[in-house]
Amino acid sequence: MKIGNCIIAQSGGPTAAINATLAGVFQGASGQFAIGRIFGGLNGIEGILNGRLVELQKVLDSEEKIQLLKTTPSSFLGSCRYKLGQSGQKEAEMQQLFQVFQENNIKYFFYIGGNDSMDTILQLEEYQRSHGGDVSFIGVPKTIDNDLTCIDHTPGFGSAAKYIATSVQEIALDTAVYDMDSIVVVEVMGRNAGWLALSAALAKNADGTPAADLIYLPEFAFDYDTLIADIQKVQERKRQIVIVVSEGIQDAEGNRIAEAATKDSFGHGQLGGAAKHVEAVIKERLGVKVRAVELNVCQRAAGHFLSARDVNESVMLGKKAVEAALAGKSGVMVTTKRNDGPMYGLTIGTTEIEKIANQEKVVPESFVNAEKNGASAAGIAYLKPLIQGEVTIPMEDGLPKYASLSRWL
Amino acid sequence: MKIGNCIIAQSGGPTAAINATLAGVFQGASGQFAIGRIFGGLNGIEGILNGRLVELQKVLDSEEKIQLLKTTPSSFLGSCRYKLGQSGQKEAEMQQLFQVFQENNIKYFFYIGGNDSMDTILQLEEYQRSHGGDVSFIGVPKTIDNDLTCIDHTPGFGSAAKYIATSVQEIALDTAVYDMDSIVVVEVMGRNAGWLALSAALAKNADGTPAADLIYLPEFAFDYDTLIADIQKVQERKRQIVIVVSEGIQDAEGNRIAEAATKDSFGHGQLGGAAKHVEAVIKERLGVKVRAVELNVCQRAAGHFLSARDVNESVMLGKKAVEAALAGKSGVMVTTKRNDGPMYGLTIGTTEIEKIANQEKVVPESFVNAEKNGASAAGIAYLKPLIQGEVTIPMEDGLPKYASLSRWL
Repeated sequence: MKIGNCIIAQSGGPTAAINATLAGVFQGASGQFAIGRIFGGLNGIEGILNGRLVELQKVLDSEEKIQLLKTTPSSFLGSCRYKLGQSGQKEAEMQQLFQVFQENNIKYFFYIGGNDSMDTILQLEEYQRSHGGDVSFIGVPKTIDNDLTCIDHTPGFGSAAKYIATSVQEIALDTAVYDMDSIVVVEVMGRNAGWLALSAALAKNADGTPAADLIYLPEFAFDYDTLIADIQKVQERKRQIVIVVSEGIQDAEGNRIAEAATKDSFGHGQLGGAAKHVEAVIKERLGVKVRAVELNVCQRAAGHFLSARDVNESVMLGKKAVEAALAGKSGVMVTTKRNDGPMYGLTIGTTEIEKIANQEKVVPESFVNAEKNGASAAGIAYLKPLIQGEVTIPMEDGLPKYASLSRWL
Repeated sequence: MKIGNCIIAQSGGPTAAINATLAGVFQGASGQFAIGRIFGGLNGIEGILNGRLVELQKVLDSEEKIQLLKTTPSSFLGSCRYKLGQSGQKEAEMQQLFQVFQENNIKYFFYIGGNDSMDTILQLEEYQRSHGGDVSFIGVPKTIDNDLTCIDHTPGFGSAAKYIATSVQEIALDTAVYDMDSIVVVEVMGRNAGWLALSAALAKNADGTPAADLIYLPEFAFDYDTLIADIQKVQERKRQIVIVVSEGIQDAEGNRIAEAATKDSFGHGQLGGAAKHVEAVIKERLGVKVRAVELNVCQRAAGHFLSARDVNESVMLGKKAVEAALAGKSGVMVTTKRNDGPMYGLTIGTTEIEKIANQEKVVPESFVNAEKNGASAAGIAYLKPLIQGEVTIPMEDGLPKYASLSRWL
């Protein structure tokens, strides 16, 4: 077994559970005979290129701090969207990175991120295969988008789904108060994969009916005529309607609705997101009161309302990443497969990073209804376990208490 | 003491605590010798005009239901924005209303609402004074806007403030992850009164610094040159900046920023709210990455994250409204005054509705800093007690469980 130090870093968009994964990797690596110093790489690969490392054993020097980290949203170590080679100096970058590894005696490298970030693991692994080296490169999954392949679902998704479903329930309650026809269009994240929008299907009114009447995903062609017909069908049975759209909804030709040069009835161009465009068209065609609500970054940052299962699984996958590294693996990501049968459970393994990097897993047709405007029973069955359980987070003066690197450095 | 029935109704925009007030009035009225049947008026005065009453003793027939009602956001009985006389048939409306009162032997009328709703109480009281009658008309305060006069703060504000401050903390964490200059502009509600925007001043980074770097309220003239200068001053010490604006910010001439015909650099007209306009101007003038985030209706509907003090006070003021009615009062609203001294406490009383209806309490100059781009120490001291305490709400299948009138009818 190799003996040396390790780096943990975070990359891509923040989530509410990415720090739980960091805590899991840290806990998994702590006290291991093969691992000496545990470095945090700041701002992902971009910071590591510049040698920006912190010693995590000094930062996370108490159980209390590690626990606080687990319920802190956003990327504790900072993040980046840097793709290796984008500078056009890939060879020089690689030499620089491996020099940082050598200087710091790095034998294990854990990169917490989504499909773009897994490309970094792939590139490092390929470079090492052709140039030599003995660093274990392990991908640790996270993304609210849930669009990684070879894994049942991604850490971070469950908490985002819980926040979205809860917000949709509350928006539905809010919109139902007036004795008049009205429509709310809720926009959630997801450019190519509609998992987050689909999670709104979990939202229920208190009488058990779905809180989201219509849900549109980027996977299935969006068309305004169909939308209006769908709305009119819902209007036959209720006056206040909640519609959920992915930011990435697109027409049959692949044109994004959010990027269309829609003009409202005043001839104003609509900027803003998909919901704003949909709002303008509904207003124009149906003359009904419409409001667009964009859940925006809150859906990925809402540490005050986490899925306990998501946080627990995030920690666990972090620990499993260390186990995989110590078992001699490299160029893999930690993955999960849902067990068959009625009881929820996961089987954890690893998958070659080639199968994951730069791939996207979209919502399958079997998870939506025949009209492609809502979830199927199979979709609900898939989603439901992921939002289970609540986390009581530490509070201070009426507000959530969160971990801070700059405070603990 | 008059013996008869009562009506409770809700009006104006929903809040996360308005049903706690309803529960308080219901609990206060239940078992009173003077009060027989407790009716809920549906959709406020608009529904009552049409005789739309439900018997609340049948709807809220268990302690469990009453408790669930207390943590359910939005208006359980429905709401309206109806102003008496707006139909031009005020005399006919009044006759109709008093006929509904007479037919149902109504002696007590509790109206839960904001300053517009208090106008309804005023009109009913005035009509009765000139035409005779023996109904007690009691206003029960609620509004997230905190803009009612003669009261220390309004029920519903504390929970909205807690949600806003928490979201701003989380947005600040989210925006800090990349190693680049960036600005987020968060828009909160408040057309004429900036209380909700001011509450963002409670939000703290984990290192204790304010999470909202700049806060702009409708009470003080907003000017783009000052904004840019303010931003540049903050940029001297940090790279990621969070700005909070009230939806109602306006220039020195009283022109709303949200209504300006701002064009972005592509010549597109900006619709959307104040934050979208501010975003476009910052982008144009500073060329920095900017994102607008509108907290929208979630800030008044977020029953999943309540201020315990707000919920408790809402219940209490509901009960006090019944006490005031039974003590023979009419044409008043239940009000509070904050006790002097370091310990938070309220003295509860009633105030004549004439002093409250159609009035607005705005943020005083003493509550903001000299630059008028943030809270003063006095402002913070005022706000802080209002967001204290958490509420553990009932959950079902990973999502909040909320009360539903249609289910219990």
